[in-house]
Amino acid sequence: MPTARAFAVSSPTARFAPITIPRRDPGPTDVAFAIHHCGLCHSDLHTARGEWPGTVYPCVPGHELVGVVTAVGAKVTRFAVGDKVGVGCMVDSCRTCRACQAGLEQYCETHGTVFTYNSPDAHQPGHRTYGGYSTAIVVDEAFVLRMPANLDLAAAAPLLCAGITTFSPLRTWGAGPGTRVGVVGLGGLGHMAVKLAHAMGAHTTLFTTSAGKVADGQRLGADRVVVSKDAAAMAEVRPEFDLIIDTVAAAHNLDAYLQLLARDGTLCVVGAPPTPHPSPNTGLLIFGRRRLAGSLIGGIPETQAMLDFCGAHGIVSDVERIGPEDLDRAYDRMVASDVKYRFVLDLPQA
Amino acid sequence: MPTARAFAVSSPTARFAPITIPRRDPGPTDVAFAIHHCGLCHSDLHTARGEWPGTVYPCVPGHELVGVVTAVGAKVTRFAVGDKVGVGCMVDSCRTCRACQAGLEQYCETHGTVFTYNSPDAHQPGHRTYGGYSTAIVVDEAFVLRMPANLDLAAAAPLLCAGITTFSPLRTWGAGPGTRVGVVGLGGLGHMAVKLAHAMGAHTTLFTTSAGKVADGQRLGADRVVVSKDAAAMAEVRPEFDLIIDTVAAAHNLDAYLQLLARDGTLCVVGAPPTPHPSPNTGLLIFGRRRLAGSLIGGIPETQAMLDFCGAHGIVSDVERIGPEDLDRAYDRMVASDVKYRFVLDLPQA
Repeated sequence: MPTARAFAVSSPTARFAPITIPRRDPGPTDVAFAIHHCGLCHSDLHTARGEWPGTVYPCVPGHELVGVVTAVGAKVTRFAVGDKVGVGCMVDSCRTCRACQAGLEQYCETHGTVFTYNSPDAHQPGHRTYGGYSTAIVVDEAFVLRMPANLDLAAAAPLLCAGITTFSPLRTWGAGPGTRVGVVGLGGLGHMAVKLAHAMGAHTTLFTTSAGKVADGQRLGADRVVVSKDAAAMAEVRPEFDLIIDTVAAAHNLDAYLQLLARDGTLCVVGAPPTPHPSPNTGLLIFGRRRLAGSLIGGIPETQAMLDFCGAHGIVSDVERIGPEDLDRAYDRMVASDVKYRFVLDLPQA
Repeated sequence: MPTARAFAVSSPTARFAPITIPRRDPGPTDVAFAIHHCGLCHSDLHTARGEWPGTVYPCVPGHELVGVVTAVGAKVTRFAVGDKVGVGCMVDSCRTCRACQAGLEQYCETHGTVFTYNSPDAHQPGHRTYGGYSTAIVVDEAFVLRMPANLDLAAAAPLLCAGITTFSPLRTWGAGPGTRVGVVGLGGLGHMAVKLAHAMGAHTTLFTTSAGKVADGQRLGADRVVVSKDAAAMAEVRPEFDLIIDTVAAAHNLDAYLQLLARDGTLCVVGAPPTPHPSPNTGLLIFGRRRLAGSLIGGIPETQAMLDFCGAHGIVSDVERIGPEDLDRAYDRMVASDVKYRFVLDLPQA
């Protein structure tokens, strides 16, 4: 069986270390590719450090992976050797339930979604899936995305999670010309939400706790930046938002944003906090027919649509590139929110 | 100025007593009518007993009022003396904002909604509006509803709040054939939600804490009744609901119902509890793209549509009729949930 070089943690407190992992021989519908770059997502950190239940070690995180095709199975029709491709958070699903049939594999009703890392791997019983902190991977073509030729491949890697996680709710709730969109938090997800909402033509307001991020918010495309710790500034914001994407995955006061929704507006959370948010005031939902919603990444067809949209608009992430030796320090800096706005791991090429 | 006989409380702890209240001379667009019946809503009780802030005494509650037209202004076009009419929770609004222009006066963006009782009364400066526990009222025709001729007038009174409060979210979120609707709580609102969802053609499930209400739930139209205190029964319910209308206005665990929503399903609360609900698990929103929403009564056009729908389907409330001397005892019984399912006050006719 082929193998790949990977960077894994062996326990919640271990440092990253190189290991060799098995990668299956490509089957008839599989695409094998060399991973050139992989974004670092907060989910990687929570999983690697055992902050969420269920991590099996050794753990190879990474679900924003991009690279170049090295081999394809006999029945593969959409990809060829040399193509620039990507894989996001999922590598398979049941493919038969209503959600999968609708291209919403992330909501697979049979709980059959196979996530890119730390999911049971049907191809290699006894193993978990190993993610993108590795030099190569083999994935069914149904879960492989085509990367736009004009985008810097490293900077495009985070589109595969941070991009689609914000693109999908923007599309679901109709962001576009004539709509007003708010984005809460300027991190990996938030900076993509600002870029995408702006590119979709929505009037875009960024809410950030940090006065030091105002200029950056404007540079990224926000029509307005509100420092949410400034009570006077918050009080001046009218209840005008059709959609607010809340990217903050720490417990915080949702009412501050629910009350800024227009009638029929939606506050969509995309991060699950480790401790519950303070209970939202349901009176704010009743008076205004407002909605509090959630959204999980996006399906494969929508992910391709997002990549094509980013290609057409020249949108990538703002990234800081690192090598494998930097992973532990990068995680510590992610905890400190010390990155603008996404780390991307460069994988060594054979 | 004309007057009416009314039944008022003079303090949070006072008993109901008859008083005489002013009712304005009908203006050009006004409809004057004799109130024959008025439903008793929990909101009446909260307001009369000072359980919500802002009650001005004397307070004449009542916002489910029906009767017969006694006079109309010169410019009134839609009503004539002798017509059976009703008034719900609102008697006026700004009429110019986007919400009012859209027929959603309950969400008036200028905060100009004039509620049927305890709102400042522009026609009688210094007075609050006095509600339906009275023998007559004068209301602009824009806020007067036509009662279906075939419905028992007393039993139709609660349609004007309990009916529209449940009809509106059922319509907003598309209840109908092929959809699955849940209703939480079998009280004044819940029993209307079951009747209406069933009549709209939705597969309707009632959730009640009371095993003693199972037969009643079925009689009212529920396809299935689940006793929510029965953990085994709750565990058998699949996550299949497109919409759940939660009518329980006491703090309770929303997650029990959020997790029963299908993908893209909505849990809509229509009652604001005096203390906050336990904080909902936003993970249940994210995994399933579910929505927690609220809804407030309904606008005037939708209220007329609801009445017409009820006329076409022969739907009224299950009511227990009382006289003015019974008001205090009826309130105590409402607190004890000892009514199936709505009290209606019969007003003495001159």
